[in-house]
Amino acid sequence: MLYFEDFSEGRRFDYTPVEMKPSDMIAFAHEFDPQPMHLDEEAGKRSILGGLSASGWHTSAVGMRMMLDAFMGQSTSQGSPGIDFMDWKKPVLAGDVLTGFSQVMEARRSKSKPGLGIVRFRNEIVNQAGEPVAVSECSVLFRCRDKVQH
Amino acid sequence: MLYFEDFSEGRRFDYTPVEMKPSDMIAFAHEFDPQPMHLDEEAGKRSILGGLSASGWHTSAVGMRMMLDAFMGQSTSQGSPGIDFMDWKKPVLAGDVLTGFSQVMEARRSKSKPGLGIVRFRNEIVNQAGEPVAVSECSVLFRCRDKVQH
Repeated sequence: MLYFEDFSEGRRFDYTPVEMKPSDMIAFAHEFDPQPMHLDEEAGKRSILGGLSASGWHTSAVGMRMMLDAFMGQSTSQGSPGIDFMDWKKPVLAGDVLTGFSQVMEARRSKSKPGLGIVRFRNEIVNQAGEPVAVSECSVLFRCRDKVQH
Repeated sequence: MLYFEDFSEGRRFDYTPVEMKPSDMIAFAHEFDPQPMHLDEEAGKRSILGGLSASGWHTSAVGMRMMLDAFMGQSTSQGSPGIDFMDWKKPVLAGDVLTGFSQVMEARRSKSKPGLGIVRFRNEIVNQAGEPVAVSECSVLFRCRDKVQH
């Protein structure tokens, strides 16, 4: 299990690649973001995105899953207070294979919550051409191994 | 249809309430964010969130759907370059009923993309007690009614 103390600045966790299947993209869009370019190939081609494209929220949720599988699922994560920013830099098109990494930017113990630490990550999701499609920074709370700060 | 010109500063769009059903929360978490507090009531009670709680990404995706239903589904939206920030301010617990609003902060024509305008929104999602649970700002591209800027 990864505790707060394991997230040293600069440590990097690489993702396992995930293929963006058209059926998954359409199912997500149908439930949460039913805009034409996320639901239909022809509408996507007519849009500025250039084809059937994933909702940015779908790409972000897949990114969460890649973080989970890369390290957070084997950690003392207590959730996140939010996202500092999320840039959707390029369209994610049907069949794209996404991968990427999370890297520790900063780690500090919480002043208000004893026994917890806050880790800020930079997360980059890239496509099969190595182009960044979504770049974000977010903070996550983890339990500390040492309950008392020395 | 709502074009760029319809998004005057200060204009507010109210959401239709959505209930966060435990089965939906668990299904989303199972696919995208399988952390114990998002999958299991008992694990949620033991966590700092205090009960079975929605993944922040689920709350955000539901927020997208509420934006869609409130105005974006009847607009010339061309997608979003990203989120300026997203603060998950309080846990969203099973059975919570979410509502809220999007308000236009700023609207300007794109310099690089003729015929498009960029609208920045503040989005607040609140629970049944009126407490903000997720607050964000994001930009969305819309087609302009007037192709040429006067």
